[in-house]
Amino acid sequence: MIPNRPFRQPSQGARGKLLEAGVRLVREQGFSATSVDQLCAAAGVTKGAFFHHFASKEALGVALAGYWSDSTGGFFAEAPYHHHARALDRVLGYLDLRIALIGGAPEQFSCVAGTMLQESFRTSAAIRRACETSIMSNASALEADIAEALADHGLPAAMAPGLARHIQTVIQGAFILAKSQEPDESAAMAREAIGHLRRYFELLFGPATQGEA
Amino acid sequence: MIPNRPFRQPSQGARGKLLEAGVRLVREQGFSATSVDQLCAAAGVTKGAFFHHFASKEALGVALAGYWSDSTGGFFAEAPYHHHARALDRVLGYLDLRIALIGGAPEQFSCVAGTMLQESFRTSAAIRRACETSIMSNASALEADIAEALADHGLPAAMAPGLARHIQTVIQGAFILAKSQEPDESAAMAREAIGHLRRYFELLFGPATQGEA
Repeated sequence: MIPNRPFRQPSQGARGKLLEAGVRLVREQGFSATSVDQLCAAAGVTKGAFFHHFASKEALGVALAGYWSDSTGGFFAEAPYHHHARALDRVLGYLDLRIALIGGAPEQFSCVAGTMLQESFRTSAAIRRACETSIMSNASALEADIAEALADHGLPAAMAPGLARHIQTVIQGAFILAKSQEPDESAAMAREAIGHLRRYFELLFGPATQGEA
Repeated sequence: MIPNRPFRQPSQGARGKLLEAGVRLVREQGFSATSVDQLCAAAGVTKGAFFHHFASKEALGVALAGYWSDSTGGFFAEAPYHHHARALDRVLGYLDLRIALIGGAPEQFSCVAGTMLQESFRTSAAIRRACETSIMSNASALEADIAEALADHGLPAAMAPGLARHIQTVIQGAFILAKSQEPDESAAMAREAIGHLRRYFELLFGPATQGEA
């Protein structure tokens, strides 16, 4: 769910090149419209190499969700917002980072897992499960900070998993609204959506009570 | 974005049958994965009939976004929440209706326009524009009530268009999270998301100030 280029090393072997081609093609045209031939051409590898690494296009889709999740998860795990002392500042810092990462056309900031889910949730149980893992691992990574912020503000920590999922919900919806716009207006639409999410958190936690816990 | 069956008349002619088949197939497997042959088989019409009504699969996609928008828009225009005297109650009534309409598996409550946008936003400018019209007309239909509620609560009415878009954002994201789950857990996931949206509106408008305007 983060811009493609700055956060991953250039892929070396055929497998890595095929996964990078998958990221780009799924973002541009979706998973169903992407053929094995297109993946091979974009990666600059032979069809033999494809089937050496993946038993089928579906198998590449499953691996792609994991590849996406690992690379984006690693980026967020190392992001500076974790250094804020207060838990609520870490949560809001994550949202600010998500806003900052949105730029350019939707294919530069949209989510590979969300796109594959939209099309393939019923036609491939394996892809659905892999995308569920990708999105829910992003949500889970936020739960501890949200739970601590809830406790700091006298709110029930049991709300944390649902709030973490809601962050992913709004981000996924933001990408759909962004895709509805001309390329030069897409980023503003997505940032607006995450801005509303940030305001929800501010209202829920109540800035006036900050520091009183 | 509402369940298929109860809100539309059974389709009569070949055109209507093809559009109904499009609603079902796009919800189940997406637009890219749906072929003209599948549409004809599902509609029980010949390929000749298809090309009599639509110049191409893309042309059906454009018509489908309009058909979807017209049928769902008509349903919401006639819904009972419009009878609430207070504007905020009408806005919350719309959200409650959206929650009530979610049930069953995602293909029974997901959004045809959002699904087509996710895949085709870059590969078909015509489908992107048709889906933009569909989603943004749903948003626009809420603006007057939101603006009146904002004014009632001493908030700037200029926030109305952004809040109306945010409702669509969360609904679209709710469908993605729903699709990440097993069929019997999908509806609860989507309802949770719109529940957070409802809480955002309650917090923003402030229940304590109700009736004071």
